[in-house]
Amino acid sequence: MKRYVAELAGTFVLVYFAVGSAVFAIDKIGAVGVALAFGLVLAALAHGIGPVSGCHLNPAVTLGVFVSGRMRAAEAAGYVGAQLAGGVVGAALLKLTLSVGEITDRTKALGSNGFGSAVNGTGAFLLEALLTMLVVLTYLLVTDHVALGHAAAPAVGTALAAACLAGLPLTGASVNPARSVGPALFAGGERLEQLWLFVAAPLSGAVVAAAVAAGIHHSRTAGENAE
Amino acid sequence: MKRYVAELAGTFVLVYFAVGSAVFAIDKIGAVGVALAFGLVLAALAHGIGPVSGCHLNPAVTLGVFVSGRMRAAEAAGYVGAQLAGGVVGAALLKLTLSVGEITDRTKALGSNGFGSAVNGTGAFLLEALLTMLVVLTYLLVTDHVALGHAAAPAVGTALAAACLAGLPLTGASVNPARSVGPALFAGGERLEQLWLFVAAPLSGAVVAAAVAAGIHHSRTAGENAE
Amino acid sequence: MKRYVAELAGTFVLVYFAVGSAVFAIDKIGAVGVALAFGLVLAALAHGIGPVSGCHLNPAVTLGVFVSGRMRAAEAAGYVGAQLAGGVVGAALLKLTLSVGEITDRTKALGSNGFGSAVNGTGAFLLEALLTMLVVLTYLLVTDHVALGHAAAPAVGTALAAACLAGLPLTGASVNPARSVGPALFAGGERLEQLWLFVAAPLSGAVVAAAVAAGIHHSRTAGENAE
Amino acid sequence: MKRYVAELAGTFVLVYFAVGSAVFAIDKIGAVGVALAFGLVLAALAHGIGPVSGCHLNPAVTLGVFVSGRMRAAEAAGYVGAQLAGGVVGAALLKLTLSVGEITDRTKALGSNGFGSAVNGTGAFLLEALLTMLVVLTYLLVTDHVALGHAAAPAVGTALAAACLAGLPLTGASVNPARSVGPALFAGGERLEQLWLFVAAPLSGAVVAAAVAAGIHHSRTAGENAE
Repeated sequence: MKRYVAELAGTFVLVYFAVGSAVFAIDKIGAVGVALAFGLVLAALAHGIGPVSGCHLNPAVTLGVFVSGRMRAAEAAGYVGAQLAGGVVGAALLKLTLSVGEITDRTKALGSNGFGSAVNGTGAFLLEALLTMLVVLTYLLVTDHVALGHAAAPAVGTALAAACLAGLPLTGASVNPARSVGPALFAGGERLEQLWLFVAAPLSGAVVAAAVAAGIHHSRTAGENAE
Repeated sequence: MKRYVAELAGTFVLVYFAVGSAVFAIDKIGAVGVALAFGLVLAALAHGIGPVSGCHLNPAVTLGVFVSGRMRAAEAAGYVGAQLAGGVVGAALLKLTLSVGEITDRTKALGSNGFGSAVNGTGAFLLEALLTMLVVLTYLLVTDHVALGHAAAPAVGTALAAACLAGLPLTGASVNPARSVGPALFAGGERLEQLWLFVAAPLSGAVVAAAVAAGIHHSRTAGENAE
Repeated sequence: MKRYVAELAGTFVLVYFAVGSAVFAIDKIGAVGVALAFGLVLAALAHGIGPVSGCHLNPAVTLGVFVSGRMRAAEAAGYVGAQLAGGVVGAALLKLTLSVGEITDRTKALGSNGFGSAVNGTGAFLLEALLTMLVVLTYLLVTDHVALGHAAAPAVGTALAAACLAGLPLTGASVNPARSVGPALFAGGERLEQLWLFVAAPLSGAVVAAAVAAGIHHSRTAGENAE
Repeated sequence: MKRYVAELAGTFVLVYFAVGSAVFAIDKIGAVGVALAFGLVLAALAHGIGPVSGCHLNPAVTLGVFVSGRMRAAEAAGYVGAQLAGGVVGAALLKLTLSVGEITDRTKALGSNGFGSAVNGTGAFLLEALLTMLVVLTYLLVTDHVALGHAAAPAVGTALAAACLAGLPLTGASVNPARSVGPALFAGGERLEQLWLFVAAPLSGAVVAAAVAAGIHHSRTAGENAE
């Protein structure tokens, strides 16, 4: 049970703070600041809840771990449900903060992901799939089962920050359906119509990552990375 | 006794260098630079004094640890006193450096926290409470008692930097009454009138963090994170 | 065999994401963002495949390790072949993403390295040799054999990011023939004519690094850094 | 002997790459980029030579360690000599790279430290002493003797980067006589006349740091941080 609470709370925190850094401050911190916020929040959480749930906070990561045979289907479904709920709560609280605080939304769309201006749909799919591959591959290579230990916690944060640096100006660098669903629900309109891509592309990238990891993975003795 | 000296010296260093990065240089390093300064100073100190006192340097963190039943009241009160003293010394030395050095204060108010222009009071309270929740939650999840080991030291720095990235342009991202008290005392005026919020909101967030942590925390074998 | 797959996949990822951060986003993230992307991708990969192959992803690193007597010639040749193949695949996928996605190449030359505007050829050679020396020296000092453990994984990322900060505005900071070959093949023209320098200078720097490392290296007990 | 070679080579690398990031690129990477370069180079070197010499690369650090009774005078003198030599070699190679490469020096003075425009001499002394105190304090708190292990290596890099973020726009944030001597010798003029401050102030800060550390330091069991 603790694992599901951890995934829900962690995804809420990721959406509120990292997406929030764009919503509240992208005019002052730029794409580098937002990319760092995503990586730093994930790194902090990975130290905190990595030993509990693996700190996925992302259905694509959970899919990659499941496809790699490390989780049962019911468990993975519970993770994804918790992540989606956490993302919706995070986006709702972002919306509430903007509204009660009379704050200007610097992204005009609650930090939702989209495509069409800097990249077309085909390119966005390819890009999101490949960016997600990097993130999921990192999770699969630095763990043996599900849990993530302190030694490897920084790796998942650096992978996410790197993916954001490359992709933020094009699609907002989702790489995570749970990060995209909440903001899109509240943003509505075109962003909601484009949401399918930020679910389908990351999940495709996760499957590719599982295949690549199977060709590289060097299994460690139990207890080295995991607790 | 060493713990109180550590908290006093550490809070002095945090205020002098991190608040100082805004006071001396925000025109050149921007909000990203200031956010990094907060995170980097805390990370360096967490390696240095984490094993001694837990490197709280923040009454909200101490409250969260106390509410979680890991400290006695007298001990917590001693921590908070040392932190407030350290923050005042740090702000005084910042003021002295500006004055003897004929340096322009780039923040015009000794890096004190405030609200009203980019966010109203209600929003500032909600934001500061939630930002603090992230920081305190990270401390609670990466430690079992009070001490903070090397493996988890980077986590508290990344959490603080992330909170600053999201909140700096709105309120200055206090998340720490000891960081706010010193500069507000010297800045005076409206900043001093608004100080109550930067005490009350972080402390509220700390209580929420303790509740969330209780639902997630995975107790570790003694000695793993703590020394 | 796993080591060669790791070097190929890793070099592909490094080129796609780090060079890609320049191609897709340097107008938004600047030289600091691109330098961080290189360092963060390498750090993430070092955690993931460091224990498998040492995470060289760079013929200059492999040469330095070979010259230091830690690899056999056939092994080193296999590494270099895998790295070059990975770099070409990464550059090809970058080109494909630009083309199918109708994305503007912010570097106008697929992120290839060059000289002539900010530095002449002699200076570029000296600079690339010295920047590479820092990177290869770091690998040699933090490992005893070939494998790279979690504790030292961040070091190689920070060394690469630092080299990029110093050299990006002058030559693009190759320090890695495998990172240069792929983009130059697709960019063609002057960039292809200048490619020799981004092979020869990094390899020269690697030999110097091996000599310096021999004078400093403090051999550790087996198992400390390596797995 | 290896220790002196390590200090010489490390200080050369620090000056060439970190000061070089300002000389070659501060117009593109700004003060944040230069601050990160200092921190990242030191972190990479701390992993590499920390176990050999402690990776001081700075007479102020060596003075702090000596005053704390962890080194003999002859040893400390050898360290300082090696550091000064390394800094001069680094500055000479920077000068050579600019000259043979026909590169514009973005700092106009080989990245030397100075005061007078943004801060007067008294303020510069106070600032440099306090910034150095943070750096030296971090070294003293994360080590028990001289050697610096992998677990604590990032701490000294983050401390230096933080000091640079706060001080770069005012004095260039020396905090290190060996970093200042080489560039000042080649820059000459006013920068050479002001050099005394960037020797005296850091050394003063180091003595204060030793006093503060004595009140906090929590001695660890041998082998925990040191190798």
